[in-house]
This record gives sequence, structure tokens and C-alpha cells, in this order.
Amino acid sequence: MNFLSVYGYGSWPEIIASLGRASEGPAPSYCDDPLTARVQDRLARLFEHDVAIFPVISGTAANALALATLCPPHGAVFCHAESHIAVDECGAPEFFTHGAKLVLIEGEDAKVTPQALEHALAHFLKGFVHHVQPAVLSLTQSTELGTVYTPAEIAALSEMAHAHGMKVHMDGARFANALAHLSVGPADVTWRAGVDALSFGATKNGALGAEAVVFFDRANVKDFEYRRKKAGHLLSKMRFVSAQLDAYLEGDGWLRAAALANTLARRLETGLRHVKAARIAHPVEANAVFVSLPDADVKRLRDGGAAFYDWGPPVGGRTLFRLVTSFATPVEAVDRFVELANK
Amino acid sequence: MNFLSVYGYGSWPEIIASLGRASEGPAPSYCDDPLTARVQDRLARLFEHDVAIFPVISGTAANALALATLCPPHGAVFCHAESHIAVDECGAPEFFTHGAKLVLIEGEDAKVTPQALEHALAHFLKGFVHHVQPAVLSLTQSTELGTVYTPAEIAALSEMAHAHGMKVHMDGARFANALAHLSVGPADVTWRAGVDALSFGATKNGALGAEAVVFFDRANVKDFEYRRKKAGHLLSKMRFVSAQLDAYLEGDGWLRAAALANTLARRLETGLRHVKAARIAHPVEANAVFVSLPDADVKRLRDGGAAFYDWGPPVGGRTLFRLVTSFATPVEAVDRFVELANK
Amino acid sequence: MNFLSVYGYGSWPEIIASLGRASEGPAPSYCDDPLTARVQDRLARLFEHDVAIFPVISGTAANALALATLCPPHGAVFCHAESHIAVDECGAPEFFTHGAKLVLIEGEDAKVTPQALEHALAHFLKGFVHHVQPAVLSLTQSTELGTVYTPAEIAALSEMAHAHGMKVHMDGARFANALAHLSVGPADVTWRAGVDALSFGATKNGALGAEAVVFFDRANVKDFEYRRKKAGHLLSKMRFVSAQLDAYLEGDGWLRAAALANTLARRLETGLRHVKAARIAHPVEANAVFVSLPDADVKRLRDGGAAFYDWGPPVGGRTLFRLVTSFATPVEAVDRFVELANK
Amino acid sequence: MNFLSVYGYGSWPEIIASLGRASEGPAPSYCDDPLTARVQDRLARLFEHDVAIFPVISGTAANALALATLCPPHGAVFCHAESHIAVDECGAPEFFTHGAKLVLIEGEDAKVTPQALEHALAHFLKGFVHHVQPAVLSLTQSTELGTVYTPAEIAALSEMAHAHGMKVHMDGARFANALAHLSVGPADVTWRAGVDALSFGATKNGALGAEAVVFFDRANVKDFEYRRKKAGHLLSKMRFVSAQLDAYLEGDGWLRAAALANTLARRLETGLRHVKAARIAHPVEANAVFVSLPDADVKRLRDGGAAFYDWGPPVGGRTLFRLVTSFATPVEAVDRFVELANK
Repeated sequence: MNFLSVYGYGSWPEIIASLGRASEGPAPSYCDDPLTARVQDRLARLFEHDVAIFPVISGTAANALALATLCPPHGAVFCHAESHIAVDECGAPEFFTHGAKLVLIEGEDAKVTPQALEHALAHFLKGFVHHVQPAVLSLTQSTELGTVYTPAEIAALSEMAHAHGMKVHMDGARFANALAHLSVGPADVTWRAGVDALSFGATKNGALGAEAVVFFDRANVKDFEYRRKKAGHLLSKMRFVSAQLDAYLEGDGWLRAAALANTLARRLETGLRHVKAARIAHPVEANAVFVSLPDADVKRLRDGGAAFYDWGPPVGGRTLFRLVTSFATPVEAVDRFVELANK
Repeated sequence: MNFLSVYGYGSWPEIIASLGRASEGPAPSYCDDPLTARVQDRLARLFEHDVAIFPVISGTAANALALATLCPPHGAVFCHAESHIAVDECGAPEFFTHGAKLVLIEGEDAKVTPQALEHALAHFLKGFVHHVQPAVLSLTQSTELGTVYTPAEIAALSEMAHAHGMKVHMDGARFANALAHLSVGPADVTWRAGVDALSFGATKNGALGAEAVVFFDRANVKDFEYRRKKAGHLLSKMRFVSAQLDAYLEGDGWLRAAALANTLARRLETGLRHVKAARIAHPVEANAVFVSLPDADVKRLRDGGAAFYDWGPPVGGRTLFRLVTSFATPVEAVDRFVELANK
Repeated sequence: MNFLSVYGYGSWPEIIASLGRASEGPAPSYCDDPLTARVQDRLARLFEHDVAIFPVISGTAANALALATLCPPHGAVFCHAESHIAVDECGAPEFFTHGAKLVLIEGEDAKVTPQALEHALAHFLKGFVHHVQPAVLSLTQSTELGTVYTPAEIAALSEMAHAHGMKVHMDGARFANALAHLSVGPADVTWRAGVDALSFGATKNGALGAEAVVFFDRANVKDFEYRRKKAGHLLSKMRFVSAQLDAYLEGDGWLRAAALANTLARRLETGLRHVKAARIAHPVEANAVFVSLPDADVKRLRDGGAAFYDWGPPVGGRTLFRLVTSFATPVEAVDRFVELANK
Repeated sequence: MNFLSVYGYGSWPEIIASLGRASEGPAPSYCDDPLTARVQDRLARLFEHDVAIFPVISGTAANALALATLCPPHGAVFCHAESHIAVDECGAPEFFTHGAKLVLIEGEDAKVTPQALEHALAHFLKGFVHHVQPAVLSLTQSTELGTVYTPAEIAALSEMAHAHGMKVHMDGARFANALAHLSVGPADVTWRAGVDALSFGATKNGALGAEAVVFFDRANVKDFEYRRKKAGHLLSKMRFVSAQLDAYLEGDGWLRAAALANTLARRLETGLRHVKAARIAHPVEANAVFVSLPDADVKRLRDGGAAFYDWGPPVGGRTLFRLVTSFATPVEAVDRFVELANK
């Protein structure tokens, strides 16, 4: 009953096999290999748009490199207060941007709203040298609290951002889970909705360590390649990252894996809705359930073998915790958890 | 006849298999997994010393993170003018150290000498706030020109560095090739000779992308883990990097692979010594041969299918070029190259 | 009727005269001159404590250099959301710290409370490599909204900060105004209340451009001098900054100047309290009055020659604005403003 | 007999008086004041060209801010190995550029030659992501060894730099001394000779602390103003820096002051040429004499009250040292020094 994170689970056999194939025979180093080219083609078809793509090995690297390319040192990145870039990257965006500022926006279910963005923007005077200058809006899809932005929500936010001269970045560490929920195409939640750059994640859906930074307008790429190299993120055998992405994008395996994870989260939610003491904290739209239970129940679940993270300290005898599902989470674990919660 | 670099060649079957095994079943994320612990144990035994080890995915990351941990922003790193950190990392050390300076030292065969180091040190006044302060000596083993420092050479340089309050870093991207040449133990060219931190490379000897930063004194580790995270180099599924290192270090496969590469380089050298027009530029002690030939011969070799990098522009009708061998270079390629050079 | 800022007003004759004297005859450069030594002595006596002091020429430099010395790149500085370091320094702290994070705390009248600090700290796990690590609490005295922390308030906050292993920095750009309000000694609101480092401001009270970073424990100085030099803030003729501070600290002129500014602010407040439509937004404890008036009144004041900054956009037909007084603000301007507001 | 540096001497009465005048009455803060505008006008007339000028308070700040504006983090600044930016700024250029690299060029009398520049450029492949990219050539006028570039020399170097897509920066900390030597106009050694940005120094010729960064093409200014603010170098009362520059540029006082310093250096040189044991090390073209004497003579000079810096350690019983003259060096000190050297 491991609901800690998707990282606890491994990879797909297809991805391992792809690594094996990539290892055979000589190949060009860095990014000049056919596999990287093929991933570029796959993503262009997938997004129905010309794209410039850059494989990297971690979500933090993807986000920080994308943000640094879009935001000057004297700029500001607007993001939700719960976002990964704000909370879980140890200040990587600040380091990569050489000292830009993250402006934190509150909002229900980890989602930025146009009202909140407008309110935050009001504090920054354009061209006023004492203020950092609004440069990027960063949205997480799906969010850190398991919710999903609709294409219309993204479009409204992008429009406001662009009207202020900002670029729009999407942290898509769980991009597949969002798509699986929305039943729209990748283009619909990205460039068609105004997104300029995407951290396309695969690691949380089966890769060993593979993400791609995707730019929908080559004018935004600027010095990205130098930044990637200067940060130690240009691998000499980059084809092994591309090999992961290549297998990941073959067919619709990546969407099916995400859909499975989402389904298991819904199954958890459905089960827990029948647990009288349980309170679901956020809409369950992707692969995470945030639920609170009386402390005694939480203890019983852990004693019974369930692993999960608390989400903040206990309050009033109850604990809020997070349950994450993945393509590899056994359905039996889900059912056993609900059963145990019900006792 | 691919002699461009070792990166052109893939990985070992054992390493691919290790990745497959690491993918089975749930495991702790980041570095809390048994594989990372096992690599730690392996390296401690190998170096006959307590070590703190940190897997990363590229040599540039290993070097830059190690240097940033050992050198303050107002410090100086002394290194050979040909060193990878000086030439081929796009300023990564300067970025990671937040603006420290690399002091370049000239020296034959890409080796720093005590005389040259002393001469360079004379320009820096201790405690003089206008000068960057000597903080690290970085040596490459084996060097960028295919030569190897002896334990005595390293010890003499380390002693001088330590006497000036500096730490000693070793860029061991080709550490195995140096060991295979020297027939001494890993401890002899590292901590016993005064090395404080080592970038232990595996990627140039068969890994997909796996290096380990090794500290021989835990007091030097300081904030390394925060730096690694902040630079996007802490992988969520770090066990897949450790899995590579684990297979790499199993038995003496890594030393045999390096010895094979060295042997092929010697075979190239021996063959080329019989080519009248060829001039070997540096002692061939590891897996690289630097040789010059008349431009016409160079053209004939390329036309015949040999791939290699020029080392500087043609001078006086001759071109200096580099031939790199690896564990996977076919011996036939070596012999065919010599044959073609001989025509 | 210039109430824009104290910067609009010049310097004291005593300070200009001190510059003239400092210009006579040869003197040691950088900080080795007798004037800098005398400022050190003056501040030690003033604070009744051994201090290490470092003159700089701007408040942003003082704050950013102090914070960078106290906070590692992976650290967090806790400060009020209205603080100068958060709002008005274009991200200087992030640049100087090499990417640390400012954690913004809300609180009435621009003051941090222990409750709010505790709440903010709860989001950061000690030793958890994904989170920036709490390193510094920065308080502004007097605050950006014209209020003043009492010694007891500072002590309570410092105690909490120290208990979390953090250092306490005070942005004392308006330190004199706070002292003039409190009628306590400099020691009472600094080291006796737990402050580790102070940006001691003089520019907002009469200097041309002179501040001193004051450390109350030399162990905290660490590499400050290298940071100051590396940031271009070590002046070759630093004695001209020290000459300003020397004249500033001669006798109690600096406290009288601040007391005068405070008195004028109170006079403004008292007058405005009789203006029916006026609403004073914050306690007037230093040299600033925050007041709102109907937009028509605001227009009439500006048309009548009053200069001041709005504090946010008009809301509901009213505008909040800031009135700053200085040692050089004519009392007639104050009275004329009130008169005009009363019409 | 103080020949340590010009910093040992103070300022001009005209500059002190200008500060006094600037202190009277209210004025706009930051750079919106009439004095800064007047300095802008003065410099435009002086350079016979539209210029964008930005006052700062130190030469290190001027250089580092100019370089950071012209050079990306992945760029390289080419400069002489003896240059102030390379030797005496504690890595400020690396900090401000966020990790760019200084490429050091050797050359007689601290001057870069086209041959040496071409040789250095040959090591950098354009567009090769592993190499930092040539971005700026920085020349010092007059040089750190008291020599002066002719307009033709500058033009030849600028042409080569521009042909490689680089910008040209001039460190003009001693710009006035160079002009006084050359008897050409300011335009002749700057934009007419291809210089893009100039650190126009006044501190070494009489200001308390005042330099101006001068751009000859506004397209190069880019984000300079944000960088200046973010580095704590935008003074709230910037008019006091401008007041210094304003008085400095009034009439030809600045050129006469430099000419006087140069004349005193020549007088020193002439006198020392009659000292049998003395060897002048570099042409004396500005306000510094580099001379070597037997160690016993050096001791006698110091014992007799002369103050100066050694330039490197004693070699073969002789010491090379530097003598700096300024507008305020007493001619008696010069004559007494020569007399003492002659004994």
C-alpha cells in the first residue's frame, strides 16, 4: 500500500528495452542522434505544431531552465503558492534565473485565478526600476493538489499574462494525467490556450528520468542550449534520455498509463466517500487524493502497512494526507486501503 | 572507424540489465534506496576509506558541484589550461560557484607541475580583498591529452595546495583509464596522495550517464546536497543512476573495460609509430592518441571512413588530431586505421 | 510641500564640511583610514558593545550584503510582505545571496508577529533538501508603514528565530526615527533584543549616501569583506563615506534630526485628524503618515502644490497616500498641507 | 613621498563645493535630477555623440555592470592578463555576469595586440555549446602599467572584435591621463575607434567616488538600469555623484589635473633615468612609473619616507615597484624621491 509518490514505482519494460536498443552500435553524442530527432518529430505531431524540444533528466531542471530562459534576473515569475517551483525545488528557479523573484498567488485547489493574478500584478509598476518586472506566469498541470485546469481557464490566464507582456510556462510534470482527465488534445491545453513553454514530464508516469522542455515558438528558445550545458544538464549520451521519451511516446501508452493512475485515484476517492469520518479536501481529477481522517484512523492505516505523506501537521484531532496513485499501483492496494479506512 | 569519443559507444549489457532489475517493485525515491547505499559501500571498500558519495548524471555536474562546494564565490580554482572544467563546460564552474575564477596553468601534456602552480600562486595575496583567494587545485586524471599523473606527482601537488590552504579536486572522468595504466589502487591516486574530492566517472567507460562525487572527508561535504538539489541534479528516481554505478563496480569489469580501451590506444600508437609521416604528440598512457599527419593523409583517412576530431587548425601542412578508443572500439577499426595511414 | 521622500532633501552642513576636511592631505585608501576607525569607535560606544562595522553607500547594498553573509544560497529570509527588501530592491537580496528565497509574511502595520512567523516557519522542513532552509529573519525598524517595533516585540521575534537556528537582521534605514520614537538606547532594540546584524542607515536622515552594516558578533562577519568588494561596494576612497558617518554621529545631531522629522509627522497627523474626511491608516510613530482622502481632496492638494505618492490605486472614491517628513521639511509646508486638506 | 596610489589624495575644492550646492533645497531623487541631466549633456558634447550615461560610485561597479550588460552568462570577456577586471576586482565581473569567463591575454606593457587577440579567439568555436562564446573585448586606457593605446591601436582591435560579433568595452579609470598623453579628443579613442561602452573614471583624478558608464549606442543599454539597481548601485541621492561629475567636467580642469599627474610621472622618469642602477620597466605615458632598483636602494627609499607598492617579489637582488602620481602629488616629493634614489 505505497501511496507516497509515483517515484516509488519503477519504469515500463518498453522503456528499459528502448535503453537496451539505444546501447547498440555507435551513435552521435550530445543531441545529434536519431533518437532525439525522432522525439522532436513525435512531439511536433503530438502537439500539431512546430516545436523546439530539449530533453533533460529532472523536472526541476526542466522548470528552472525554462524559467531562466523566459525570465531575466530582474524579472518575476507568478505562480501558485503551492506550486512545485515555489515549494519543492530548493530555490532552483532563483538560482537558474540569477535572482529573479517568485510571486506567490493563493487560490483554491492550487489553481491560479484571473482575479488573483490581476491582484498580484497590481503591486508591480512597469518600468519602475525598484520593482522586479512581471515576466512569466507558471501554471502546473495537473496541479500539486490533484486538480486540472480546463483549456478555457488556461486561455483566460494566458490572455491576461500576455496582455502584461509576460510569457506562459506550464509545469507539466503530470501533463499526461491532466490530458487523461480532460479528454482533449495536447494542443488544447498548451499553445492553443496560450502556453509558450512546457515542461513535458515523463518521469512521474514511467520514465527513469526523462523530461522535455518544449517551446512552441522558436523565438523563445534564445540561449536555452547554453544554459542547459552550463548547468551540467547536457548529457554526453543524451540519446539515453531520448530513448526513454521515444518509448514513452510510442502509441498511446503514456496516456493509458496516466488514465490508469487517474482511475485508481478515483477508485480510492469513491471508496473513501463511503468512509464516514473521511473528508476529501480537493476535487480528484488526476492521480492524487487529499483526504483527512481522525488521527486514530490514520494511525491504524499506517500500522496496517499503508505508506503516505501527511499534508501539514494534525489539526483538531484530524490529519490531512496525500495518496498518490500510479500506473503500477496494484488495485488490491487501493481496495485494501479503503477497507482498512472503513474499519 | 569511430575515434571521435567514447560517447559514441553505448553501454554494457550488465548495466542495462541492472536498470531492468531496478525497475521492478517499489523502492524509496531520491537517494534513500538500497542501490545507492550499496554503491556507497562499494566505493568505500574500493577506496579503503570512509567516503561520502553522491551520484549525478554528468561529468560537468560532478565537477561543478564539487568545485562549488569547495570554493567560495570569491575563491579561485587552479587548473590546467587544457582542463575540461576550463575549456569544455561553458563556464559551469563559474555558474555553480557564483562567480569564482579559474586560474589557468600551462604545462606539458596537460599536466600541472609544482613549479607552474607555485608561479601561479605568487600572483594572489592571501587575505587581500581585491584578489580572489586560492581555494582549490583541480587535477584531471587521466588528463585531456591522454597522460596520467603518478601518485608521487599528485602527492607533491596536493602538498603544495594544502600548504596554501587549498583543497584538491580530481576530475576523474577517465579515472579507470588512469588506474589501468598505473597498476596502483584507487586509494593511491586519491586520498593517499592528498585528494579531497573526486569526480568518479563512469560515463566514459560504459555507463549511460552516471558519475559519483566522492568526498574522502565528510567535513568537506558541507551543503553539497542542497547544491545538487538546487541545480536540478537530484533525481527523483536516483536509484537508476545508482543501478548503473552498481553494475559498473561489480567485480573488476570497469577496470578491464578501461584496460581494453588503453590497450587499443597503445595498439594505435604502435601502429602509427611505423607510419613515417606520423608524429605522436603526447605520451599515450590512457585511451587517447594525439597524432599529427600531413593534411593529405588526414583527408585520405577521413575519405576512408575514419571519424575523429582535429585538435586545432592545420599548421604548416600538417594537422594534429585526436583518436579516442573505448571498451567497444573494434580492434579491426584500429588496425584498419593504421593500415590506411600507412598507405 | 514636498512629502515624496526624505531623499528629496539634501544633507547637513556638518556632513558637507566633514567631506571637505576629509579631502585635505594624503590618507590611506579603502578602509584603512582614521575616519573609518573613528566611526567604528563611535558605533561601538553608541551600541555599548563590540561591533564590526562596514560602510557602504546605499541601503540596498547594506541589506543585500548583510543578508548574503547570513543566508546561504539554499536559505530563506523571512520578512514582512511590505518590507523594502521584498518590494523595492529589484531582487537584490536574491542576486547577492545567489538565489535564496524571501518568505513574505503578512501582518498589520507592516510588522511581523510571532504568530505569523511561526505559521510561515511551519511550511519548511529542517534538513529536507527540497525546501529552502530558514536562515534569517529580517525586520525593518522603523517599518515601511511608519510604525516602530518595541524592544519586547523584537526580543520575542528574535527568540523564535534563534530557536529555529536563524539569524536576525534589522533593516535600519530609518533606525534613528525608531529610536527617537522609543526613547530607548540603540542597544535596546538591537543586540539586547537579539539582533545579529543591522543595516544602520544615515542617508534617510541627512547623509549623501552612507550606511553601515553593523555586526554584533564578529563570528557572523565571515566573508563580508570579499562580498562587498566583489559587488563593487568597496570604495577606494571609503573615507568619504566614513566622513559622512563621522559627522552624522557627532553629538546627538542624528537623533535630533530624526526627532524633528517625527515631530513634523505627528503635527501632520494631528492636523489631519481634524479633517473630517481623512482616515489615518497606520499609527504614526516615525516620519511617515499614511492617510486616505476622497479623490477630489487629493486632487485639490496636488493642484495646490503638494507632492506625495499614492499608496495603491484609488478604491471606492478614496485614495490612500503617503506623506514623508524629514529634518528639512519646512513646518510651513506641514501647516499649509493641513490647511489645504481642510478646505 | 606618497606614491602608493591616487586614492591617497583627496578631492578638488570645486567638487566639494559642488556637493554643498547640491545639498541645498529639494530635488528629485534617484537619477531624475537636473545635475544628472547636465552631466549627460556635458558628456554628449565632450564625446561629440549621443550617449546614454549612468553614474556609479566605483570603478569596479562601472566595469562589472558594463560587462554584465554586454556579455551573457555563457559569454567570454577578452582582456589583458594584467587588467584590473582580471586581477583586482575579486571576481566582480564573474559575479555580475552570472558566471561568464575572462580570457586572459598576455602582451607587452599591459597592451592587447591584434595577434594575441586572434590567437586567443582561435580557441573558441562559434555556436559550440561547450565553449563560452566570445562576447566582449575589454581594453584599459591608460593601462595598468602606465601605457596608452593610440587611436589606431584601438581601432584595429575593435575591428577584429566586431568582426567576431563582440562588443568593445573600455576601462577608463585613467581615461583623462590617456587623453592628456595623446592630445586627441575623447571621441578619437572611443566610438570613433569602435568602443561601444566606456567606464569613464573620475575617482582616480579627483572625485570622491564617481564614475560614469557611457554607452555610445543606446541599443547596448538593454537592462543596465535594472542591473544597477539590483546590485545596490542606484543611489537614492544620485545627484551627489552627478554633482561630482558636473564639477569634474566643468571647463578643462579634469584634463589639466591629469596632465599635471602625467607631467609629474615624466619628471620622476627623467630623474630616475639618471640613476645608474634604475631600470624603467615600461614606457611612461600616463601617471605611473614602473622602475626596478637594487633591494638596498629600495630599502633606503622606504627608510627615507617614500611609500610605494612592490610589483612582484624581489628577483636577483632587485625589486620592481610602482610609483603613482596624481594632481595633488607635491613636486617636492618627486624631486626628493629622485634625490634619495641617486644617493
